[in-house]
Amino acid sequence: MYDGIIQDLIDEFGRLPGIGPKSAQRIAFHILQTESFDVARLAQLLIDVREKVRFCEICGNVAEEAQCSICRDVRRSPTTICVVEEAKDVVAIERTREFRGLYHVLGGAISPIDGVGPDDLRIAQLLTRLRDGTVTEVIIATDPNLEGEATATYLSRLLVQPGLTVSRLASGLPVGGDLEYADEVTLGRAFEGRRTVER
Amino acid sequence: MYDGIIQDLIDEFGRLPGIGPKSAQRIAFHILQTESFDVARLAQLLIDVREKVRFCEICGNVAEEAQCSICRDVRRSPTTICVVEEAKDVVAIERTREFRGLYHVLGGAISPIDGVGPDDLRIAQLLTRLRDGTVTEVIIATDPNLEGEATATYLSRLLVQPGLTVSRLASGLPVGGDLEYADEVTLGRAFEGRRTVER
Repeated sequence: MYDGIIQDLIDEFGRLPGIGPKSAQRIAFHILQTESFDVARLAQLLIDVREKVRFCEICGNVAEEAQCSICRDVRRSPTTICVVEEAKDVVAIERTREFRGLYHVLGGAISPIDGVGPDDLRIAQLLTRLRDGTVTEVIIATDPNLEGEATATYLSRLLVQPGLTVSRLASGLPVGGDLEYADEVTLGRAFEGRRTVER
Repeated sequence: MYDGIIQDLIDEFGRLPGIGPKSAQRIAFHILQTESFDVARLAQLLIDVREKVRFCEICGNVAEEAQCSICRDVRRSPTTICVVEEAKDVVAIERTREFRGLYHVLGGAISPIDGVGPDDLRIAQLLTRLRDGTVTEVIIATDPNLEGEATATYLSRLLVQPGLTVSRLASGLPVGGDLEYADEVTLGRAFEGRRTVER
């Protein structure tokens, strides 16, 4: 309904997750009419993020170098690995300041409906990291929903090896939701109260 | 909490209206991880919209030329002007297909709290358009909220001139909301049932 280019911008914003047509329109007009909004900066960041951001070769977290800032941090304990679905979850857990070990980002969760199986996740890389015996505990911190639970169960059965404890975040997380939306206190307590998985 | 550039992108999205920190994060990761999302296109559109889109010299609607596509359309009736607050409202009314006249975009509404007075709106330009007597009806279609009503009242008192009818969209619009959110049927009926303002 708008003249060409504005409608193009509205359409492009409408492709982003969580932005409906009305929001896209509101954003496009905001950008058009707000002189102080730096369009060049946002445009450059969009390009840069795709070009410069990669995934840590060790844990799969986002990184601007070959390894992420957590894997490069010598103060982090190398004996504990916390397994999460997404890089977003690393940030959520870091905010609690409860965990001083390393991470492993799976890149998703097992979901037959979405056609995601164990081979689509970074599970082989996790097994490689466990091979030399440095790691003594794996904390499974997948989302407290169906896919996350399935992934946790799969991993807890797979990761049976001498000297390795496998634990799961304590319930206390609101069930059915996404880990990243948990508040810091809830997530912190879930960490403290994590339990060893019985097998 | 993220390494530099991702956080910068998240922050930049967070500056847009209606996007909170969580949504901004979700969008940034979507852009980062979705190969099919064309970052170059969005980046270019952001730049282009600012550079190429201007406001119609006649009515104040958005345009890519000196005059907007509605003002340039000779099939539109030049005897009726519909006065709206924003360019978004033009699109909402065009969707109803009830109106075949021209528009005048005020660029806002009178709002003492926000420091917006009559002089901040494109009212002088409206008076100029009415000067030669071509226009026989002005339909005031400001938002059905406090500011919109104040603006309508102000205009209806100002636009007293021989041979000019001033009307207001029929009530039927949900009160307290924004005109742009009205569904097409409601808005269409409000147009049909518009009433002459008594003075």
